[in-house]
Amino acid sequence: MVRVLATGTFDILHPGHLLYLSKAKSLGDELYVIVARDSMIKHKPKPVIPEAQRLAMVKALHMVDKAQLGSEKNIFEPLCRIKPDLIALGKNQFFDERNLESELKDHGINAKVVRIHSFKECELCSSASIIRKIMERYGKSN
Amino acid sequence: MVRVLATGTFDILHPGHLLYLSKAKSLGDELYVIVARDSMIKHKPKPVIPEAQRLAMVKALHMVDKAQLGSEKNIFEPLCRIKPDLIALGKNQFFDERNLESELKDHGINAKVVRIHSFKECELCSSASIIRKIMERYGKSN
Repeated sequence: MVRVLATGTFDILHPGHLLYLSKAKSLGDELYVIVARDSMIKHKPKPVIPEAQRLAMVKALHMVDKAQLGSEKNIFEPLCRIKPDLIALGKNQFFDERNLESELKDHGINAKVVRIHSFKECELCSSASIIRKIMERYGKSN
Repeated sequence: MVRVLATGTFDILHPGHLLYLSKAKSLGDELYVIVARDSMIKHKPKPVIPEAQRLAMVKALHMVDKAQLGSEKNIFEPLCRIKPDLIALGKNQFFDERNLESELKDHGINAKVVRIHSFKECELCSSASIIRKIMERYGKSN
């Protein structure tokens, strides 16, 4: 059994998330997902959808075996319990694979880190582009 | 095998959709979903997400066994092929159950029509409320 872990914000779900999670799942037998806490998202705009709802939506996806919220203190803490064999990073996740592997080792987690380069190209394949479309359509009358 | 059919626009997915589809699935053994065509949505604002993407998102949900786009001409046409035993209407779907059953019979479809009254109460449990939140957050700077 190879346990794969994927992580992300998963703000407004779109086919880019589906591609990332399907590719992650295909690397092993079971897919665990950690959904980022609202309080831990500091490098990009705050999500529109609150963390509990983002988690509920990710849990409803057929390729996801288990999903939970991340820690608000230490990102390594849930990993110690999940014990993933493999961590699948998305194309835009800012960690360096080798540095992360070595940091994981320092926390007693022997997981391989791989980058998923597949990327969905479509008009509304990002939460930002969905927000942009809503603003274009409804912004004028506000 | 009881085949249940659910239908809807499923514009920006939210927990209200998950509740409706889970309840529909629980009424039988397999859940088919018909996703409304862009061109057929005339009684409410046009969806933000185009039909192909709305379909892809519904297909990714674990409680959905099969999903397809509706017809652009005749709403009964796909039903003749799917042959549902039961059609589950959501709380806000405007058909009258008995009238619909009788119209279905006229088209050779012997399906029972039931209304799912369960309804998810939450801040962002409708596509409209998600759009409203985006407008509140991003509208001012536009």
